[in-house]
Amino acid sequence: MSDTTGKTIKCKAAVCWEAGEPLKIEEVDVAPPQANEVRIHIIYTGICHTDEYTRSGKDPEGIFPVILGHEGGGIVESIGEGVTSVAVGDHVIPLYTAECRECKFCKSGKTNLCGKVRATQGKGLMPDNSSRFSINGKPIHHFMGTSTFSQYTVVADVSVVAVNKQAPLDKVCLLGCGITTAWGAVMKQPGIKDSTVAVFGCGAIGLGVISTASLVGASRIIAVDTNPAKESWAKKFGAHEFVNPAHLKSGQKIQDYLVEITDGGLDFTFDATGNVHVMRSALEACHKGWGVSTVIGVAAAGQEISTRPFQLVTGRVWRGTAFGGVKGRTEIPGLVDDYLKGVLKIDEYVTHRRGFAEINEGFHDMHAGDCIRCVVDMS
Amino acid sequence: MSDTTGKTIKCKAAVCWEAGEPLKIEEVDVAPPQANEVRIHIIYTGICHTDEYTRSGKDPEGIFPVILGHEGGGIVESIGEGVTSVAVGDHVIPLYTAECRECKFCKSGKTNLCGKVRATQGKGLMPDNSSRFSINGKPIHHFMGTSTFSQYTVVADVSVVAVNKQAPLDKVCLLGCGITTAWGAVMKQPGIKDSTVAVFGCGAIGLGVISTASLVGASRIIAVDTNPAKESWAKKFGAHEFVNPAHLKSGQKIQDYLVEITDGGLDFTFDATGNVHVMRSALEACHKGWGVSTVIGVAAAGQEISTRPFQLVTGRVWRGTAFGGVKGRTEIPGLVDDYLKGVLKIDEYVTHRRGFAEINEGFHDMHAGDCIRCVVDMS
Repeated sequence: MSDTTGKTIKCKAAVCWEAGEPLKIEEVDVAPPQANEVRIHIIYTGICHTDEYTRSGKDPEGIFPVILGHEGGGIVESIGEGVTSVAVGDHVIPLYTAECRECKFCKSGKTNLCGKVRATQGKGLMPDNSSRFSINGKPIHHFMGTSTFSQYTVVADVSVVAVNKQAPLDKVCLLGCGITTAWGAVMKQPGIKDSTVAVFGCGAIGLGVISTASLVGASRIIAVDTNPAKESWAKKFGAHEFVNPAHLKSGQKIQDYLVEITDGGLDFTFDATGNVHVMRSALEACHKGWGVSTVIGVAAAGQEISTRPFQLVTGRVWRGTAFGGVKGRTEIPGLVDDYLKGVLKIDEYVTHRRGFAEINEGFHDMHAGDCIRCVVDMS
Repeated sequence: MSDTTGKTIKCKAAVCWEAGEPLKIEEVDVAPPQANEVRIHIIYTGICHTDEYTRSGKDPEGIFPVILGHEGGGIVESIGEGVTSVAVGDHVIPLYTAECRECKFCKSGKTNLCGKVRATQGKGLMPDNSSRFSINGKPIHHFMGTSTFSQYTVVADVSVVAVNKQAPLDKVCLLGCGITTAWGAVMKQPGIKDSTVAVFGCGAIGLGVISTASLVGASRIIAVDTNPAKESWAKKFGAHEFVNPAHLKSGQKIQDYLVEITDGGLDFTFDATGNVHVMRSALEACHKGWGVSTVIGVAAAGQEISTRPFQLVTGRVWRGTAFGGVKGRTEIPGLVDDYLKGVLKIDEYVTHRRGFAEINEGFHDMHAGDCIRCVVDMS
């Protein structure tokens, strides 16, 4: 028990006061965890496109003021009544996809989309419909149930998992979103071994898909990106080929080109761009009769995917995945162990590092073509 | 060997001379089967919406003049060189989805979409790029590799299957398309037992899906149709509930209503309408996390399906099926046996009968709400 237990903690947090504004480092009050809640000292956090999507104001469900961030690594500072899943001092990763093991979704055995805290999480609040963050008494909203852009955050006990303390938190924090999502998107899809795969988009998610497909033993992995600099990245992560849609002959669609060079199309494709037009290309690049296309990227509000139904009737499957279908509490400890064993790449994704005071520069880094992931030191 | 073997046969066929024209009964010359071809005396044929789609001119790939029809039952009159799969006198069903057992598709074990005769079939020709039908020397095109609207037709040996002679051809002819498609769409989809199912459209395909879902043991089957007369049909085939989208409260979408009455949506939905807007409703009526929607209906040319990618990312799967995923040569004999054992409904679909001279009236019957299937006596 630390001397802060049961007390409000004052610490620094990056607050987004209004849609479109840069983050501002503020001193916030972080109330103690209530029953079934956990207060975490965040040591490192990644920055992900979803944070930027809400910050920018493009997310119509964004609520302000808010403390963003959902790729964190930290240490449990204190726990509320009834918490049994983690203990003070545990190294933990907050989970924006909870796992309560009790709801209809968790018990179905078919999905990782736990329903337990979904409604309040979507409103930027804790399960009791209030916030643990405030500045001068004015509440600041939570984000994705995690809010890792604060030196201390409070999460539901179903939204956090303890991991091996040997693992450096500046690396495994990235398991809070991108790397896990990519890993799960491939691992939960049967049949990748000895199959052909195309991956659209070579950001962190795309590279993670390439890496995992390589690990599983895909026979041919084609990376697709309009940024030529991504070719070396894609190959470093295991792609056999790189195709730049901008370099095709005039008028040729990327899906037609891929169908041509693969004798009918890919067995599996993955969209890791969030662009609805690319999602269509990824579906239509699939082989007739059995090709499966997985949407991983999150599209902007109001955008829709389209295709001719003939694409489905002739045997292609269009599916998607959130957090890679991974049940965080159950599966992330194993991913951390895989990382420690050298089976799972994480270090390779970290191209940029920033101090907390430079977090807005970290957002700028993300937009640069040479950034895969920027990790922020919260100290 | 009959006395017509090796000779051209003159017989009656319903020819569609031009897009949008009614069929015209003509005397046609039917050339003898070439190597790996089979000439069939067609005894009965069903009329399906796909015939009407091409007849009407809406099918941009329609080729005229043509002999339509793809739901036939007949008797092998003669066989060409090298044919071993059927013999003269066999009762057979022509297959618009061939099964060669040798191509990449057949050998994949993942699809029924045989590639062997696809290219020429699409051009309305036999595999040697010519037609067996002619009138005064002018070739008439084949249709879907079957052309069952002729008293004699020629098909590739990979496009026909022999069935139990005890089975009445005026019934099992319907296994050439609709009933088999519906059966396969359900049987090839794991997990229907004890699950909830909604079926959009209560024509022959929709009723077949309802019937098969009932057979498999779906826990709740909801039929959806805008024609109130279909309620009794749907329930006769095994639906537990009937919902008429036209009777919802103002502005409510059918998918929202279904999600509401099923505590989150259906485990499985099927579109049997061919309407792209209904296909969207069917997807969106699926349960988050695991719902699977299958497109069976064939949409009009150029039409597209759309949805928000969020629907897929949150765990819904959009797929389709052609001929129900059924491998005709391998599986239809078993369906005929199931019919003879009383396990598979066929008689119940036959609401109308026509003589060959009335085949255009059969097309009109199909548009009437009280028609499930019209069977034409080709004699």
